[in-house]
Amino acid sequence: MKLRVVMQQLGLVLLVMCFCMLLITAWASYLWWADDAAEELFAIKGLIGAIITGGAAGISLWAGGMMRWGKPKEDRPFDESSLGRREALLLVALTWLVGAALSGLPYYLWWHLGDHAMDHQFRSAVSCYFEAMSGLTTTGATVLSDIEAVPRSLLLWRATTHWLGGLGIVVLFVAVLPTLGVGGKRLFNVEAPGPQQQGVRPRIRETARVLWLIYLMFTIVQVVLYRIFGLDWFESVCHTFATLATGGFSTHNASIGFYNKVEIGWFNSWMIDIITIVFMILAGINFGLYYHLARRRFNVIWKDPELRTYLGIIIVATIIVSASLVGRNIVETDGDQIVADTTDAVRYGLFQVVSIQTTTGFATADFNLWNFLPKMVLLLLMFVGASAGSTGGGIKVIRIIVGVKVIFAEVEKVFRPNVVRTIKVGKGVVSPELRQAVLVYIIGIVSLFGVGSIALMLLEPAGSIDYVTAATASAATLNNIGPGLNMVGAVENYGFFSSGSKFVMSLLMALGRLEVYAIFVMLAPSFWKTD
Amino acid sequence: MKLRVVMQQLGLVLLVMCFCMLLITAWASYLWWADDAAEELFAIKGLIGAIITGGAAGISLWAGGMMRWGKPKEDRPFDESSLGRREALLLVALTWLVGAALSGLPYYLWWHLGDHAMDHQFRSAVSCYFEAMSGLTTTGATVLSDIEAVPRSLLLWRATTHWLGGLGIVVLFVAVLPTLGVGGKRLFNVEAPGPQQQGVRPRIRETARVLWLIYLMFTIVQVVLYRIFGLDWFESVCHTFATLATGGFSTHNASIGFYNKVEIGWFNSWMIDIITIVFMILAGINFGLYYHLARRRFNVIWKDPELRTYLGIIIVATIIVSASLVGRNIVETDGDQIVADTTDAVRYGLFQVVSIQTTTGFATADFNLWNFLPKMVLLLLMFVGASAGSTGGGIKVIRIIVGVKVIFAEVEKVFRPNVVRTIKVGKGVVSPELRQAVLVYIIGIVSLFGVGSIALMLLEPAGSIDYVTAATASAATLNNIGPGLNMVGAVENYGFFSSGSKFVMSLLMALGRLEVYAIFVMLAPSFWKTD
Repeated sequence: MKLRVVMQQLGLVLLVMCFCMLLITAWASYLWWADDAAEELFAIKGLIGAIITGGAAGISLWAGGMMRWGKPKEDRPFDESSLGRREALLLVALTWLVGAALSGLPYYLWWHLGDHAMDHQFRSAVSCYFEAMSGLTTTGATVLSDIEAVPRSLLLWRATTHWLGGLGIVVLFVAVLPTLGVGGKRLFNVEAPGPQQQGVRPRIRETARVLWLIYLMFTIVQVVLYRIFGLDWFESVCHTFATLATGGFSTHNASIGFYNKVEIGWFNSWMIDIITIVFMILAGINFGLYYHLARRRFNVIWKDPELRTYLGIIIVATIIVSASLVGRNIVETDGDQIVADTTDAVRYGLFQVVSIQTTTGFATADFNLWNFLPKMVLLLLMFVGASAGSTGGGIKVIRIIVGVKVIFAEVEKVFRPNVVRTIKVGKGVVSPELRQAVLVYIIGIVSLFGVGSIALMLLEPAGSIDYVTAATASAATLNNIGPGLNMVGAVENYGFFSSGSKFVMSLLMALGRLEVYAIFVMLAPSFWKTD
Repeated sequence: MKLRVVMQQLGLVLLVMCFCMLLITAWASYLWWADDAAEELFAIKGLIGAIITGGAAGISLWAGGMMRWGKPKEDRPFDESSLGRREALLLVALTWLVGAALSGLPYYLWWHLGDHAMDHQFRSAVSCYFEAMSGLTTTGATVLSDIEAVPRSLLLWRATTHWLGGLGIVVLFVAVLPTLGVGGKRLFNVEAPGPQQQGVRPRIRETARVLWLIYLMFTIVQVVLYRIFGLDWFESVCHTFATLATGGFSTHNASIGFYNKVEIGWFNSWMIDIITIVFMILAGINFGLYYHLARRRFNVIWKDPELRTYLGIIIVATIIVSASLVGRNIVETDGDQIVADTTDAVRYGLFQVVSIQTTTGFATADFNLWNFLPKMVLLLLMFVGASAGSTGGGIKVIRIIVGVKVIFAEVEKVFRPNVVRTIKVGKGVVSPELRQAVLVYIIGIVSLFGVGSIALMLLEPAGSIDYVTAATASAATLNNIGPGLNMVGAVENYGFFSSGSKFVMSLLMALGRLEVYAIFVMLAPSFWKTD
């Protein structure tokens, strides 16, 4: 383990976050000055406090990593060969674990530097950490009951953590880890740009550059579309960040359901729904496929087995959920009630299905009040999740495909033990190693879900939460969704949990986001062995 | 698929069951005559009706299988080569599915041939099938609320279905399937007796003979012990059958907890508990190990990794459960309440842990009223289950061992992809095929548990059962335990479920008992292909 490389890179990550906070501080200062928005003052103080802390830590780590510590043979402090698998894994884990601490600092300082009469969730450091981790892991679970009372600059920072986290995860799982040969390399239908000979780092850098451009392009398009159909720039940017990262933080207490009826008009309200649904679906697709799109290889995209299954699941789930909604009451996220005709049923059904399967967690209806069947479909979708290499969470569609195929093969093997079948996904053969990795991953997620549920039941006072709340809170944080059922339903929040539970759920979010291994490997003593 | 071989063997199975019913009918007739037990009359009618039906079906199938149907090259109607894998699997599935229908017939006929004023669960054919399947799969879930009102001959038949089912499953998984090379052959630490050359059938017959003798010996010893410590012969036999098969049917409404305080005295009451615990543990051990015991290879037994883990889990679980019981109220199965001192806590903790882990399902306390932690431990034990090759159900300890080792290996592989580790259990290396089979099995059980829970929620009227009832009913039937939590808790029964739910749970019991595959293979078209 070459800790200095990890330190140095972690320092850079913190500095990037500080730079984003700096931009937001500038905007907050403008609001304070131009709109006389007094409540922004404490937010500015909080942001500056975080920038100073993060900047100091970032520069120290970066400089510390640059310095020579013995070992003179390492001439260059950072080179291609030095970012090995273990270093990359440690860096990834620390980026989210330490990054969440820095991201939560503005919230914490905002409340503590201000003179607030009322109590607030952000008084608690663990709540701030939870909110920040929920942002960076693109979960979207919040501790806030009154989101609209928080200064706009902090809400923008909250959305920005989504955006950074989403970008980070795509770069990580499409560019960095496969190139380093870590984890489910072959899960991704990625054609790394450039020849193989160019070495590890330039290849990562080139792939990351392309991904970053795709992500940026989507962002610009969605912001502009939102703006055209009635949202202001602030709302457009925040909701775009939350959509593309499949995060789910909104700037409204009623989530994005706020726009279902508001003054922006009937047509715009429909368009906001449609834009959000389309971009949630796009964000849940393997970003590696957008390479092929750029090269006009439509055939590759169309034949991609994961994409087909992903869209197929959305369609089937929407049919089931919508059918069960027709003629029934739907309670919207602001408490209004409508009786659903077929159009409403499809509109609300599709939105909720896409939001949950892509693990975004936006809501336009309180699905906690729905019947058992649609609720159960949504719960299953939580575990299925989006595509590998997307910003979405969950087990991922490709793993479900492989898992189902292996199970079928196993049944046949019982009465035909000598028939050896290769398992294919599309044109690619799934190796036995990958099969095992997929099965272990599924068992791992289900086990962590169980452990998380039990931990929440034990950490909360006896009788204060029910099994469904504990189970869905565990599922919704582990799979990076956001809302669950009952006490963590679509119109509820996570504020009431004890600090212990919030910490456990922060860990579940990180575990789910980093596909478990990046956190678990740190428990293996041999992981830390110096080379 | 050679259906005639399957028919013939199935016919023999039915005839064996009829023979057992005949013995019980003789005893019932004696009761009727000697004790003037009038309520036995209808039971006798029911039993005779079942014997006639089963006998006719059995003889028809057997004779039909003996006849030549075309294909003159098959001279002998049944020979070694003809009982192939597929035939064995089909026979196994039909034995339980059809056997349960025959076993349930006496219950059904008892009620319908009698002139009962009151309604009764056994009026419903599905309830009778459920009760019979619960017996044959050694589950122990009952539809009866007042067990003591049922004639004693029917209770003996009910216990006998346990005993037959337990013997069948041991013979099947230790003698038949491994010899035929079906399923988890290597899961069993079995040394098949005799030289390899003697052919498949004689080997199966020889192994089965030894297993049958061991089972019979245990039965005699336990019956005598029960008799010595105060039970009458009828109670001794019924509870012995239910213990050794890890079934759980009792002859008392208060389950075996009835003897915790009854007139048999303080000492005897303790002894009944201890005998039951010891024999439940013995029944949960791989019967293959008893070969080694007979040959005085104590070292092999002592070093058996599954046995060690199995006992280790019992000890750890007992410590957790007992610790959580000290000083608290324990409600016994007859409704009496005691405040537990340390001795009580260990006594009730150990009994419930052993009963659940071995998947017996006897109860001496209403564990549904316990705290979350001990309940959760019991719920986890339901899935762990007993040892492979025992009469117990669940996932089986050996699979848990393999699963955990594979998961650890997989974590290491993330940062050391080139290190190839063999996974060992004891001295045996677990092949990649077996690893995959184990992982798929675990996923399969968890998936079936989920599907079962959802099916129960959907089949019952909305709001009539809670999630915990549905989930634990699914877990308790799939893993062949018996009692679950809430509405299917230790002092409740399954009578209130709708016919649809009872049928689903009957299927879950069969799936769990036959380790899923024997049922699932029938869904594969290629399984039915004629050779």
